[in-house]
Amino acid sequence: MNSLSSILDNNQFNLVYNILSLGIASMVFTSIFLFVARERVAPRYRMAVMISGTVTAIAAYHYFRMFDSFNHAFAGAEGNPDLYNVGYRYVDWFLTVPLLLVETVAVLALARAAQRSMLNRLVPAAAAMIALGYPGDAKLDIFGIAPSVWGLLSTLPFLYILYVLFIELGKSLERQSAEVRKKISTLRLVLLATWGVYPISFIFNMNSTGFDPAGFVAREVGYSIADILAKCLFGLIIFSIARIKSAEDDAEFAKNEFRD
Amino acid sequence: MNSLSSILDNNQFNLVYNILSLGIASMVFTSIFLFVARERVAPRYRMAVMISGTVTAIAAYHYFRMFDSFNHAFAGAEGNPDLYNVGYRYVDWFLTVPLLLVETVAVLALARAAQRSMLNRLVPAAAAMIALGYPGDAKLDIFGIAPSVWGLLSTLPFLYILYVLFIELGKSLERQSAEVRKKISTLRLVLLATWGVYPISFIFNMNSTGFDPAGFVAREVGYSIADILAKCLFGLIIFSIARIKSAEDDAEFAKNEFRD
Repeated sequence: MNSLSSILDNNQFNLVYNILSLGIASMVFTSIFLFVARERVAPRYRMAVMISGTVTAIAAYHYFRMFDSFNHAFAGAEGNPDLYNVGYRYVDWFLTVPLLLVETVAVLALARAAQRSMLNRLVPAAAAMIALGYPGDAKLDIFGIAPSVWGLLSTLPFLYILYVLFIELGKSLERQSAEVRKKISTLRLVLLATWGVYPISFIFNMNSTGFDPAGFVAREVGYSIADILAKCLFGLIIFSIARIKSAEDDAEFAKNEFRD
Repeated sequence: MNSLSSILDNNQFNLVYNILSLGIASMVFTSIFLFVARERVAPRYRMAVMISGTVTAIAAYHYFRMFDSFNHAFAGAEGNPDLYNVGYRYVDWFLTVPLLLVETVAVLALARAAQRSMLNRLVPAAAAMIALGYPGDAKLDIFGIAPSVWGLLSTLPFLYILYVLFIELGKSLERQSAEVRKKISTLRLVLLATWGVYPISFIFNMNSTGFDPAGFVAREVGYSIADILAKCLFGLIIFSIARIKSAEDDAEFAKNEFRD
């Protein structure tokens, strides 16, 4: 069997190749489903479903680009890992992570003032978290600041987001039904479990110098699986919360959409 | 580390590359979102939202072209900055800047005569502003007129647009609610802050002779960030004004779309 790549062995190459393709498929078809399925929830919840579909659509674009960038950098006899553009992931997160928080708040359909106050804190914190993480992960030399310091700085807005989502948002959940509360617990669990992958991968990658094939493969696979869960699974849970709440708000909707 | 470009260093190349890709993603998915989200505002405001989506869609096309043009001109061992086509930006602005003013006026849903009178002055002024700026920025030799003179000529319609938006439009705002007036203030601030980037970049670029990598990178990054704010953020504020005004006009709409 011939070698697919001069840098990765065949198993490594195929694993990353197929995981990136899985990313494309998951993101594209979750988007299409969510955009069409928006009409299966009450108007009040459609913004949340449309934003969920927008998040996976933005990620779909970046997975297409990463797939091409990976092939360009690694396939064939003359590969060069530097051609793989890690920027795509950060540009993607810079756009999608704030939007993931917007969809989470939007699906609760809080009073407008409460919603605005929450988003005014969550969205800038999310953007700061991603922007501060990038120089550390890409090992850019900005004022000679070490990657670990960027990682630490990026953790502060992350902790603030967790505080807002688990403590502050927790208070507004008292008015939600038991079924919705359970779904929102799952939602926050998915968020915590998947967002946790990013700093772990960051730490593993922090002290490496030069190109480490096994580390590269682990990072790409970890990021991709985390992305699929944090965007597709997350968006589908948002959709399911929107369905439950639509039925709770409106007996006519419930009768039309469900058997019981 | 290998060099990605023979003209720019790796950080410069990656910065412009990723900013142009950010431009593509922002424009494409703001368009899709706005086109679908038009149904979340009352019919009276849908034109404004659809024009906003058209503006970002036109820009999306030009960002795809600029991204390819940039790679063609700068990537690899044999680059040539002259292959990068600055015309894309001016063609884009020639189409989108008049439309940005149309969406701004349309979302106010003024009386038809007032709207027509305002657009009859704003649209030609915007087209003149872009058309007069281009020969200066591209350093075309037309009748031997200096770049600074083109810059100055282009400033006159710009000032006229500001006069119409801030003084004349200001009068018609008295009939709008406090919430809408606040949003329109933000809108005009975004317009002023982002449109201000273009002449600054123009002036920096005015006296340069030959290719200056740092200046090129600063100009492309500045133009791209200004474009994203002036089109995507601007369009989303227009959408949000349309939502607020729809709810103010129609209690039934407000009850269906919002909790409070």
